[in-house]
Amino acid sequence: MIKFKKSIYRLVEKGSHGKKINLIFDYVIMSLIVLSIISIILESIKEIGSDFKIFLEWFDIFSVTVFSIEYLMRLYVSDLTHPTSNKFKSVLKFVFSINGLIDLFAVLPFYLPLLIKIDLRFLRTLRLIRFMRILKINRYTKSLNLIWSVLKDKKSELAVTGFVTLLLLIFASFVMYNIEGDKQPDAFPNILASFWWAVATLTTVGYGDVYPITGLGKFISGVIALMGIGVVALPTGIIGSGFIDRLKSDKNEEEQTCSYCGKTIK
Amino acid sequence: MIKFKKSIYRLVEKGSHGKKINLIFDYVIMSLIVLSIISIILESIKEIGSDFKIFLEWFDIFSVTVFSIEYLMRLYVSDLTHPTSNKFKSVLKFVFSINGLIDLFAVLPFYLPLLIKIDLRFLRTLRLIRFMRILKINRYTKSLNLIWSVLKDKKSELAVTGFVTLLLLIFASFVMYNIEGDKQPDAFPNILASFWWAVATLTTVGYGDVYPITGLGKFISGVIALMGIGVVALPTGIIGSGFIDRLKSDKNEEEQTCSYCGKTIK
Amino acid sequence: MIKFKKSIYRLVEKGSHGKKINLIFDYVIMSLIVLSIISIILESIKEIGSDFKIFLEWFDIFSVTVFSIEYLMRLYVSDLTHPTSNKFKSVLKFVFSINGLIDLFAVLPFYLPLLIKIDLRFLRTLRLIRFMRILKINRYTKSLNLIWSVLKDKKSELAVTGFVTLLLLIFASFVMYNIEGDKQPDAFPNILASFWWAVATLTTVGYGDVYPITGLGKFISGVIALMGIGVVALPTGIIGSGFIDRLKSDKNEEEQTCSYCGKTIK
Amino acid sequence: MIKFKKSIYRLVEKGSHGKKINLIFDYVIMSLIVLSIISIILESIKEIGSDFKIFLEWFDIFSVTVFSIEYLMRLYVSDLTHPTSNKFKSVLKFVFSINGLIDLFAVLPFYLPLLIKIDLRFLRTLRLIRFMRILKINRYTKSLNLIWSVLKDKKSELAVTGFVTLLLLIFASFVMYNIEGDKQPDAFPNILASFWWAVATLTTVGYGDVYPITGLGKFISGVIALMGIGVVALPTGIIGSGFIDRLKSDKNEEEQTCSYCGKTIK
Repeated sequence: MIKFKKSIYRLVEKGSHGKKINLIFDYVIMSLIVLSIISIILESIKEIGSDFKIFLEWFDIFSVTVFSIEYLMRLYVSDLTHPTSNKFKSVLKFVFSINGLIDLFAVLPFYLPLLIKIDLRFLRTLRLIRFMRILKINRYTKSLNLIWSVLKDKKSELAVTGFVTLLLLIFASFVMYNIEGDKQPDAFPNILASFWWAVATLTTVGYGDVYPITGLGKFISGVIALMGIGVVALPTGIIGSGFIDRLKSDKNEEEQTCSYCGKTIK
Repeated sequence: MIKFKKSIYRLVEKGSHGKKINLIFDYVIMSLIVLSIISIILESIKEIGSDFKIFLEWFDIFSVTVFSIEYLMRLYVSDLTHPTSNKFKSVLKFVFSINGLIDLFAVLPFYLPLLIKIDLRFLRTLRLIRFMRILKINRYTKSLNLIWSVLKDKKSELAVTGFVTLLLLIFASFVMYNIEGDKQPDAFPNILASFWWAVATLTTVGYGDVYPITGLGKFISGVIALMGIGVVALPTGIIGSGFIDRLKSDKNEEEQTCSYCGKTIK
Repeated sequence: MIKFKKSIYRLVEKGSHGKKINLIFDYVIMSLIVLSIISIILESIKEIGSDFKIFLEWFDIFSVTVFSIEYLMRLYVSDLTHPTSNKFKSVLKFVFSINGLIDLFAVLPFYLPLLIKIDLRFLRTLRLIRFMRILKINRYTKSLNLIWSVLKDKKSELAVTGFVTLLLLIFASFVMYNIEGDKQPDAFPNILASFWWAVATLTTVGYGDVYPITGLGKFISGVIALMGIGVVALPTGIIGSGFIDRLKSDKNEEEQTCSYCGKTIK
Repeated sequence: MIKFKKSIYRLVEKGSHGKKINLIFDYVIMSLIVLSIISIILESIKEIGSDFKIFLEWFDIFSVTVFSIEYLMRLYVSDLTHPTSNKFKSVLKFVFSINGLIDLFAVLPFYLPLLIKIDLRFLRTLRLIRFMRILKINRYTKSLNLIWSVLKDKKSELAVTGFVTLLLLIFASFVMYNIEGDKQPDAFPNILASFWWAVATLTTVGYGDVYPITGLGKFISGVIALMGIGVVALPTGIIGSGFIDRLKSDKNEEEQTCSYCGKTIK
């Protein structure tokens, strides 16, 4: 029994053990994830014939079955992957770990409508979470951690930038509502609508559905658009310096001490 | 009396003294600021029923009352927060300090219409200034100072970039007015209108309300749009190097001198 | 015979040998490339008279003839440029080298329709590949290699950024399809169409052909547009740090060792 | 006579001599430049009454008179500012120096129509060149030189980036013309029109006057828009590393040598 459990444990763990069966297992799951995303996209296209729709439904049932079996397997070996004092605690620890939740959301949208009445569209979007599993591929872990740690290093600066941006957006929408509200009651009926314009302008998206027509409004709009350059420049500069800082501190750890004066020499 | 004043002083000063009452005071003021901003936004939405409008008005009166009491408290203890030779000078020093002005603008728009006839819309926007108080939260002070000092370090380079951008905008609008003015008298009636196009193009907002239709106009427009890349790249590079420079100079201050050769060793 | 081959070899090789004839050969080929690109552009303009069209056709025949002769010359000296054990292997090595393929695609679109029936438009686009030869100009080789090596250094981080961007795009299009699909069946008929909106928003292009009209849709759209700032900031920061890293490692190689303590001194 | 010339020389040279008269002279010229730019902008606005138009014309005559006198003064002292073997050579040296040409273009557009028949619009734009004189203000010279030297340091990398961008634009317009040309003959009539779309997409301006409607066209468009991120990221990273590099080399010059081992210590 223990031997069987151990072989399942080896199977579901990441394919870094060099065994061929692990790699195949990994690739099958990854392919199923990508294919199931594509199948959801295809499902939404009305032009697709009903024959193909039935095939897509069958594929959905098949992929959920595989994901469910995998989830049960992971539940079964949770005392090996998440060792605690007793079996039940291990199960809970796995279920509420990030990986466990991602795996759960990959199958839950299928079973939930069978139990309770729920908005199907919202559920379908939940299925997308399974896509995040691809980020777990070994190869990218190091880079993902680097990017994550840079963002964490600079989170305070980025938060301030974000807050100033928010302040700017709110201020701009207030001003714009007061300036353009009378002239364009359809485009700027209230401050929320004005906020929509502010975001579209500051991020330089500029759909063109809402834009100022008065002279003063255009002036404010131009100022906001120019400030949009700073809104891009600040986080970029912060993130850039974060990457350089991290690369430097990685190197500093490799530094050695001068045997003569006892100080660090690069 | 002095004891009473001191307890008020401790209350209105930033909640870094570890006392629970200070933290509560801070959070109440912060919540009131955020709620009053939301209330101004909701006020502007016409769909909202009149019952709710009355509630919003009452909330406005309530929040201004709180802000007014807080302002009076700060005025009262201004000789402790801004010590000078006499009481009156301290009051003035507080009133015209940045924090004092922000606090004043948070309540002034409420009282001013009672005294003089004034444009209400402009006043409402002034109330937004109270939102800037959130930047005073302790946690962000260090990051805000860092960003500010980087922008100050590089203010000369950023000013030159800004000036060259302005030159480019003016030049582009003159050229465009001469090229497109005849063909699209509605879109490019004068150089000011042409300037609006120039800003929308250089910042890559591109609403789509004004765009060239002649071949030459499109060529100039394309050149301006491509230059827009440089307009983003230059300040970003400058700010990025500013952050790195500051991180480095922070570290250099921690450097020590080698006791042997008397030079700085990292 | 060998002498003749050597003189051809000297001719087709890059003009860095200081010989005037090589430089002339290079400039003629470069000019022909630029002119042939311009001729393809002019060919597409319907307003151009038939007389000029005939001239363009003759120019096309002329330029292809020159490129063909050059290709044959390179084939002829392939045992000198790509030395292997026998002549045939050298020819193959040249034909399937990047330079060889670029040269082949510069002439192939002309001959192919004479042999087999093929889509002419696709062929014409293939001719563009000849334009890549300009990148071979000596002067830019070092910079191109630097940029290339920076992108290679950071390929893992850039891939992760790209993947997270893709995830964001897919997630946004799913959500948007569910929100706006009912209200705007023409703009968001399926997830693929929704993906088109997501790309236009995240990259801040914002053509204005598709945009949300519901409140929730506008909120999601604003969030995506603001995330677009991060999508620009991350790769820029990564690439910037890559350039700085490379400049530093170039300098480090020039570092020397202190003869006293045996450690590296900058 | 020499004394008179010297006093004029002191007057027209940059106001860094601490003399009040120089500063006043500088500020008068600067104000006239800014005012004359504003007057050109106002001139273009049709709504402005004819009375004000006459005032603007008189102001134009006045400012040109002042600029002309200044130009004559600079011509007069050119043997002091541009010393050569004889007077005539000095005059020529000044006239064809960058500063001399800028000063000439500030007055030439006024006199030229008196001599020959010429397009007035083109002339008016030429007057803008006088605006460039503001860049000569002492305060910004250092920053302008820094930015300029960074761009010069990296000109080769920036040129390669620019060239790859051009290649991308040409390639995209060829492909798009072949894909969308049949479906939207008005938007993509030829490759030049397609190029206009390519620029608007790659720079993320996205006016919305031209956009793909076919599935394949949208796919290509999305790819180009995503590549636009790289087109911004590359020059930004290059310029950023250029600024850091220059700051570092400035510091390195201040480095000293260790008296013990004779090597450089930071």
